[in-house]
Amino acid sequence: MKLRISSAEYERRIARAREELHREKAQAMIVFGATHIAYLTGYHIVATERPMALVVPAKPTEKLIVFVPRLEKDAADQQPLIGEVWHYFEYPGKEPPLKSFSKLLAKKGLTRKFLVDSDGYPALWGYQGPKLSEVLPAAHIQATHSIEKMWRIKSPEEIELIKETAIWGNLAHAKLQEFTRAGESEIEVCLRASYEASREMLQALGPEFGGFFRGGFPCAAGFITGPNTALPHSMSWNRMIRKGDVLVTVATGFLWGYASELERTMIVGTPTREQEKYFQIMLEAQTASIEAAGPGVPLSQVDQASWNVFQKHNATQYAQHHTGHHLGFEPHEAPFIDRNSVEEMQPGQVYSIEPGVYIPGKAGYRHSDTILITEDGVELLTYYPRDLESLTIPA
Amino acid sequence: MKLRISSAEYERRIARAREELHREKAQAMIVFGATHIAYLTGYHIVATERPMALVVPAKPTEKLIVFVPRLEKDAADQQPLIGEVWHYFEYPGKEPPLKSFSKLLAKKGLTRKFLVDSDGYPALWGYQGPKLSEVLPAAHIQATHSIEKMWRIKSPEEIELIKETAIWGNLAHAKLQEFTRAGESEIEVCLRASYEASREMLQALGPEFGGFFRGGFPCAAGFITGPNTALPHSMSWNRMIRKGDVLVTVATGFLWGYASELERTMIVGTPTREQEKYFQIMLEAQTASIEAAGPGVPLSQVDQASWNVFQKHNATQYAQHHTGHHLGFEPHEAPFIDRNSVEEMQPGQVYSIEPGVYIPGKAGYRHSDTILITEDGVELLTYYPRDLESLTIPA
Repeated sequence: MKLRISSAEYERRIARAREELHREKAQAMIVFGATHIAYLTGYHIVATERPMALVVPAKPTEKLIVFVPRLEKDAADQQPLIGEVWHYFEYPGKEPPLKSFSKLLAKKGLTRKFLVDSDGYPALWGYQGPKLSEVLPAAHIQATHSIEKMWRIKSPEEIELIKETAIWGNLAHAKLQEFTRAGESEIEVCLRASYEASREMLQALGPEFGGFFRGGFPCAAGFITGPNTALPHSMSWNRMIRKGDVLVTVATGFLWGYASELERTMIVGTPTREQEKYFQIMLEAQTASIEAAGPGVPLSQVDQASWNVFQKHNATQYAQHHTGHHLGFEPHEAPFIDRNSVEEMQPGQVYSIEPGVYIPGKAGYRHSDTILITEDGVELLTYYPRDLESLTIPA
Repeated sequence: MKLRISSAEYERRIARAREELHREKAQAMIVFGATHIAYLTGYHIVATERPMALVVPAKPTEKLIVFVPRLEKDAADQQPLIGEVWHYFEYPGKEPPLKSFSKLLAKKGLTRKFLVDSDGYPALWGYQGPKLSEVLPAAHIQATHSIEKMWRIKSPEEIELIKETAIWGNLAHAKLQEFTRAGESEIEVCLRASYEASREMLQALGPEFGGFFRGGFPCAAGFITGPNTALPHSMSWNRMIRKGDVLVTVATGFLWGYASELERTMIVGTPTREQEKYFQIMLEAQTASIEAAGPGVPLSQVDQASWNVFQKHNATQYAQHHTGHHLGFEPHEAPFIDRNSVEEMQPGQVYSIEPGVYIPGKAGYRHSDTILITEDGVELLTYYPRDLESLTIPA
């Protein structure tokens, strides 16, 4: 299967990290975040209480190093972009793992200046330990956000993966709509759609699929149902779907850490006049923001386009969030489509467009589509029908 | 359904946080972590780039406050243990949300001394913002680990929930074993077992199940297969199961944030002499550590019990990790069953016992059981068969 990021692309990312090291006259970048390590090297690690780190030395002739617990060593040894593996047996050990790490850095002559994604390993699952600045008190430790800055522009390879996740998200969503019936359990319908779509995805993509996740669905669709849709981030409930319910869905596939975002508002049975009214306001707002989007357009203007529609319909009191966010490698990435944002959309960026209206105690209405900013406009990466008729469930 | 934590218990937890505030002469505890907030209040929030915080004022007469984005406000208003909801519209906004938060604290007269789980909201999903100490430069900000300390001893209510998760984990595991056949896809078998067991769990537990998770399975079983089992934390692959494979499984149910841990080594087809040998060494080590465990027993001694078995069989070079960890509310919790641990087991603690041996390039062998430390011994909360015959898949 070709659907994965090439070694050449990982090398380009590492080269960009080294450019920053050179500019900042730093000896190495030290990366503690599992998502950051995966982005730079393609090595996806289950982050636990056992600290780990990637070391990117500034010199292009020097190999990448990872520092991992013993139970990751053999997996790390197999990583094509990792040149050297340092390991400790366990956390807790005789000394804090970061202390051992600092000694290994010193042995390599790495003692002077570092760029870091955080000052030490985060307090995950019972981990406690010193900061990097505490075990390297003489070093200059400087924060960097360069990895988040890199993933703000997606490459052609990344866009291809994101497009593919949209295809499998679309299948999961189609099955979700197919299985949704009054009297069915909210959670069970989601699980069934996700399971059946994932089976098809596995059969279609073949035996090389995997390697970046542990458990979970290869593609998934879910929803919030009934009055819970008025709470944009409601949890899942084993609630029975009823005639008259508004449903707010979400679906995507997952490929090598990449995903897209597809959300739809569906209605069970003939929509009431009120349901139709708010559905159409939401749809008009989403359309306005999609049409406003494009290269060089201020993010604030794209958010304002939805807000103008809400104002026109006296519905601003029902808005609870801005229009969208960048995405692709993390579920949400900066920048945000917000009236207070100061940036402009750029070619290669991937955004969700998802203005919503929420009528307290009754229902919420939100579609989300994933769009790509191109040199001369916008390409919709998700493509499920958006109109009310297509999204009405017979009941 | 009674299977949830009572308000009385949440109030006991909050009272304990207040005891610490009193001891430390602090005005309030400020909690940024979603898991910590859920543990203290039962309010499960989807953590995003939008900062949030729980404020526990020291005085028992003062109500708990949460600071949330607009899209969480209505859900927060419905929380029985939250007395006051502060909200901001969105991140990013006109000013950093933590700046607004500091002004609201000041209005309440909360400006002097705080205990915090972290100095500000973590850098999640594109969030960047000031530390709490930066927006409250005159305040004394002191780190606390009191929530992690509290969940190191489980209450009878918590133990009841963890036991129930073990029942549903057992069902998912039984289905995993039932569906495992040579020629089937690793991921598909896991999804099918998790889906079918989750359906039964939903039907059994009824419409009140939920409220603490979004998407995912109510109960799940999965495995690593074939040579990948030699990598303890291998990712999932769409690999076809073969006769002769060793499989290392994991299963649990999820109830209001609680879980247990059940892992088994299974073999597809008649075990080879080598497979039988390492299976029996692992089983002997696990049995030794279970038998060593009990109230007042040093954690180091429980780890040593497994190590002694590995030494006896000249197998220490195949060990890659210690014997286990505390668990229940997070997948791993401190303390750890490690030869360097200095603590003792206490009644009410819940541990995994999971020593493993990993033969490079061939296979790994690990069972994990969840045990409860009682006043006079040990109770096994997971109860799936552990012997080789029961875990051999016909092929």
